[in-house]
Amino acid sequence: MAKTQDNNRIILGLDPGFAIVGYGLIQQCANSGELAKIASGTLQTPKYEDLSVRLASIEEQLLKVIDTYKPTDIAIEELFFAKNVKTAINVAHARGVILLTAIKMCGRLYEYTPLQVKLAITGYGKADKKQIQYMVKMLLNLKDLSQDDEADALAIAITHANST
Amino acid sequence: MAKTQDNNRIILGLDPGFAIVGYGLIQQCANSGELAKIASGTLQTPKYEDLSVRLASIEEQLLKVIDTYKPTDIAIEELFFAKNVKTAINVAHARGVILLTAIKMCGRLYEYTPLQVKLAITGYGKADKKQIQYMVKMLLNLKDLSQDDEADALAIAITHANST
Repeated sequence: MAKTQDNNRIILGLDPGFAIVGYGLIQQCANSGELAKIASGTLQTPKYEDLSVRLASIEEQLLKVIDTYKPTDIAIEELFFAKNVKTAINVAHARGVILLTAIKMCGRLYEYTPLQVKLAITGYGKADKKQIQYMVKMLLNLKDLSQDDEADALAIAITHANST
Repeated sequence: MAKTQDNNRIILGLDPGFAIVGYGLIQQCANSGELAKIASGTLQTPKYEDLSVRLASIEEQLLKVIDTYKPTDIAIEELFFAKNVKTAINVAHARGVILLTAIKMCGRLYEYTPLQVKLAITGYGKADKKQIQYMVKMLLNLKDLSQDDEADALAIAITHANST
């Protein structure tokens, strides 16, 4: 018996950030393994608000995305920071909230390092943003993809699709 | 008309951590301003578990503490790290979850720097753990207080009580 549409995976890729969280949803066909973009966008938090209010806003917006698209798998990028500790700490606050929300709403949660994503998408560990963006457009057959954060999120989703 | 018991504040102080979160609850009498310890302890997460599972465990345990003691105010220490970025990032993940839980369960959320806590408790900005512990015991009239994390959490609660 052929696999049904229900076996298709819906993968939510998340590029964690504090001011902007990128998200990208792709569907992977159970039979062919083919990938197609469902949606992508950004969750943004108001600069003038307190940290805790911004974290609550990230949770609220992420819950809406999960509720709308009902992903079967969630993939999120690991943090890698060498330069700016303050930025790293802010992003880690947001990433904590994102991980919590993801594990509660969808048991299948996966983490990938920036290096794993670069290798999976371009085959080159030192690929830059433009190369990632170019390959994501190619792999998903997209005409346009101007936002870095969306491209990164879709790249993480593709990495997961091709890793498992 | 005299203020009733209902005007007393219950302050939950939180010392954020990843493996161990210290918590301390104190009551402040509305009339006299006098402080008394209600409870203190630690929330601990299993080392062998994934980051996301440990974050969910922190949320679950913290919700139980808030549900049990129904604090009117929550005070949490700000992160200050210069040395170990990896530790800082792990603690920030947990702190994000703690801030989210606190703001959702109790609108009155306050943050204090380690310097503010040291000054409020000992009057000395370079006070060490032992001095903090000694003063917390004095201020709350406690016989015993062996845990650093509990002492720190109670110190944060006292800082808030005396700041507002």
